[in-house]
Amino acid sequence: MAISTVINAAGRSVPLEINNKPAIPFKGVGKHKPYGNKYGPPVPSSTDFPEDGNKVVSSLEEALLRCGLMDGMTISTHHHLRDGDLISNKIFEIASVLGVKDLVWFPSASFPCNEPLIKYLEKGTINRIEGSMNGPLGRFVSEGRMKGTAVLRSHGGRVQAIQDGEVKIDIAVLVAPSADRFGNARGTGGPSACGVLGYAKADSLYADKVIVVTDNLVELPCFPMEIEGNYVDYVVVTDKIGIPEKIVSGTTQITKSPDRLLIAELTAAFLEKSGILKDGVTMQAGAGGTSLAIAVFLNEILKKKGWKSKFGFGGSTRYMVEMLEQGQMGYILDAQAFDLEAVISVGKNPNHVPYPVFNAYNFHSKGNLTSMMDIMILGATEVDLNFNGNVVTHSDGYLLHGIGGWQNCLHARNVILPLPLFRDRIPVIVDEVTTLCGPGEMIDVIITERGIAINPLRQDLIDGVRHSGLPLKSIQELKAEAERICGKPAKARFEEDIVAAIKWVDGTVIDVIRKIKV
Amino acid sequence: MAISTVINAAGRSVPLEINNKPAIPFKGVGKHKPYGNKYGPPVPSSTDFPEDGNKVVSSLEEALLRCGLMDGMTISTHHHLRDGDLISNKIFEIASVLGVKDLVWFPSASFPCNEPLIKYLEKGTINRIEGSMNGPLGRFVSEGRMKGTAVLRSHGGRVQAIQDGEVKIDIAVLVAPSADRFGNARGTGGPSACGVLGYAKADSLYADKVIVVTDNLVELPCFPMEIEGNYVDYVVVTDKIGIPEKIVSGTTQITKSPDRLLIAELTAAFLEKSGILKDGVTMQAGAGGTSLAIAVFLNEILKKKGWKSKFGFGGSTRYMVEMLEQGQMGYILDAQAFDLEAVISVGKNPNHVPYPVFNAYNFHSKGNLTSMMDIMILGATEVDLNFNGNVVTHSDGYLLHGIGGWQNCLHARNVILPLPLFRDRIPVIVDEVTTLCGPGEMIDVIITERGIAINPLRQDLIDGVRHSGLPLKSIQELKAEAERICGKPAKARFEEDIVAAIKWVDGTVIDVIRKIKV
Repeated sequence: MAISTVINAAGRSVPLEINNKPAIPFKGVGKHKPYGNKYGPPVPSSTDFPEDGNKVVSSLEEALLRCGLMDGMTISTHHHLRDGDLISNKIFEIASVLGVKDLVWFPSASFPCNEPLIKYLEKGTINRIEGSMNGPLGRFVSEGRMKGTAVLRSHGGRVQAIQDGEVKIDIAVLVAPSADRFGNARGTGGPSACGVLGYAKADSLYADKVIVVTDNLVELPCFPMEIEGNYVDYVVVTDKIGIPEKIVSGTTQITKSPDRLLIAELTAAFLEKSGILKDGVTMQAGAGGTSLAIAVFLNEILKKKGWKSKFGFGGSTRYMVEMLEQGQMGYILDAQAFDLEAVISVGKNPNHVPYPVFNAYNFHSKGNLTSMMDIMILGATEVDLNFNGNVVTHSDGYLLHGIGGWQNCLHARNVILPLPLFRDRIPVIVDEVTTLCGPGEMIDVIITERGIAINPLRQDLIDGVRHSGLPLKSIQELKAEAERICGKPAKARFEEDIVAAIKWVDGTVIDVIRKIKV
Repeated sequence: MAISTVINAAGRSVPLEINNKPAIPFKGVGKHKPYGNKYGPPVPSSTDFPEDGNKVVSSLEEALLRCGLMDGMTISTHHHLRDGDLISNKIFEIASVLGVKDLVWFPSASFPCNEPLIKYLEKGTINRIEGSMNGPLGRFVSEGRMKGTAVLRSHGGRVQAIQDGEVKIDIAVLVAPSADRFGNARGTGGPSACGVLGYAKADSLYADKVIVVTDNLVELPCFPMEIEGNYVDYVVVTDKIGIPEKIVSGTTQITKSPDRLLIAELTAAFLEKSGILKDGVTMQAGAGGTSLAIAVFLNEILKKKGWKSKFGFGGSTRYMVEMLEQGQMGYILDAQAFDLEAVISVGKNPNHVPYPVFNAYNFHSKGNLTSMMDIMILGATEVDLNFNGNVVTHSDGYLLHGIGGWQNCLHARNVILPLPLFRDRIPVIVDEVTTLCGPGEMIDVIITERGIAINPLRQDLIDGVRHSGLPLKSIQELKAEAERICGKPAKARFEEDIVAAIKWVDGTVIDVIRKIKV
């Protein structure tokens, strides 16, 4: 059946309906005003819950059955156990054995460990995934093999969709490294500690039914209550919720590539010379090798100047923890801990505080943290001549990455993308991004090993570093340079079929991904 | 206009409509099942809030005007500043000057300091108060002088009503001893510290508009975020939100009355001999002189036995803090700090944790703390031969007290009412309570200076202490003894007009208060 499409405000052709539900085309940054009220889940009554507060049931299967698992339901999970998650797949194994069909999986992200779900997608247990997909699942979608249409949302867009009732979660299955019998839960403690549970809050507040799964049942009260037992229906205690060495990356590694180190150095220099780095600065970077190197360089500058960052927003790493512990950072507000040092820090540093993405990133909120950040270091698979960014597809058209909090982070004051000019001989700067994830007006600076391009919209930054000696270039120059070395890559070729929609932070559709033409 | 009344499950005549809204008669404990969904306030958008997170406006008046203050709105406040609150009255002063009419004041409690509101009730600025009333306001209501009908809810019933949309708060004005410019707020710090803000959470989550008023603007982020800035519209910084010596009672005082001390001693002995007091016990008492004495006696027993209370739920006092600090209590979960020592403890003891009544007391939740408490020490103005309790009116029929969390606390495993047999020569045990606040089936033991009466429904307790040497009596015997001394008091005389409704924890109407016949 043909679905009508329209050209949205970003010039992309998007459908007016996705998975049989109406979809609103992107209207421009800050242009879509929500209407109506937040979703209210059903009113529960304490009469339906045990007086002694003990909600433990014998198995995940029992919990799912008691939650009334049935065809067509939406099941949410969070990704704090990352590639070490042992529970998400199990939900659908159980559903498959029970003969349940057409489920929607609504994870905060998926990982390579979720590849086994392909068989449940093929079998019909799962109709579709609404959530970021890395690797094999993304490839499956790109090949047009998923029954429903994927819907990719940023972390903030995901919680917005939950809050606004765009996605009604029937059952949230929330793994927790520590939980008490009432369902209060946290990210620290136990054999599967992940530090914080910053992606679970909206699910727990808005899902009709909530199951907490833990391998570390602690005495009530389990503090801090990142998940509040008042929202939890059942608690499942199991042997093992995750594989520790795959939950955290052990120790995050600074890049050793000379090119990436150069990019990091240039980024730090740019931030210093532009005056963006200052006493009281607020900052956020990621856990990639280049970001870590940038964090180290910035820390050195702060130390040298006697400055202090007011707070950093995590994904936290040991380099942020070092800044905190050495006094160069006031607080780490944290939605997820990336490495072991960060996990340990959450448990011991009172200024390393869980801070859910529901608070940090939700655009349909009375403000949020993102617009208060001075420095935002982000990545991209592609950037185009209009500074538009792509983070989900490669230039060959395949959906291979999640959006994460990328779109949300674009709302920061200074959005810096330190990027290699090419990867595997594929240029990163293109005429037009394969998939539009973020509008160019929100991306301020591209920093490559061969020069820095500042978005012409940021004349203030251009003026600020004009005489700094930094290697400033236009984005066109950078693109030309890459193409001199690598040649101009072939454009990805697509069928007409839409396999995934990309939502903007306000719930509108900014772009779609179409089936790969093979 | 005559409003139809019916006899509810407790045998009380209650109206089917209150303030032009339908009312559901009490159906029996645990009998009313809620239906439908929780209230969802309007979806906001970050585009309407300052990017730098600074929501400070120049005055409370400006904030109220920006919130669209108008006739008929419901304005909520919390009572953490108790009798030292300088802001609640100011709201209505402003409204009065602006000529706004027919407001509903929806406080979590009112205090004698709120007596000046009588003039706004008389003038028509305020149509009615939905909330507990002490002293002068209660008398005003009892005399039939308030335009609308008062609605009295327990702390848990209040948050239930907010959550379920029974009461839609248009504007919540939440005072905060510390707040940042984004509206994150806490109960500690500053000149008006009150320790915790356990009554403010539901208001902040569900009100359409939220104003935070502070006299102590701190750097963002203000932690712990008892009120989350994501729900706050405006922040008002003012010179003084409260009078410190009236916010906390300084130092809570143990009773010096020999009779009350005897009651406390008997209570402790009963709890020990009945086996209710045990290692790992969970307990809650109040801040009254008798309760404090009981806490001290229980602490001595715990020490002697080498036992530890798993946690206590506050209202916290210095006696709970002593137990915590000396190792006889694992946690204080706290909705309000009653004295200075408790306020200080919240700021320094990591196991003294803010715990909102929204989590502790809400009956329309997936369970709550109340049913997990082993020992619950409560008061009452009257108890009758069926163990029914009254906490709001005196035997002369005047509404003079708030309900507090009393109804919620009745859900504890062992509800103990240590009561003097008479007050000012008025017996406390009566044939039938003047106002029914809690059904007798939930009240387990009455402990007076002249004997202990156990509810016949608790045969287990009767059996447990049969040979303990404790002065066990029937409630009839206790009543007769009081009447021998004081005589039988005259019954209160009422007109037909209903001046206040008493809600049960599930939102149904358990009783009403009628206009005093003078």
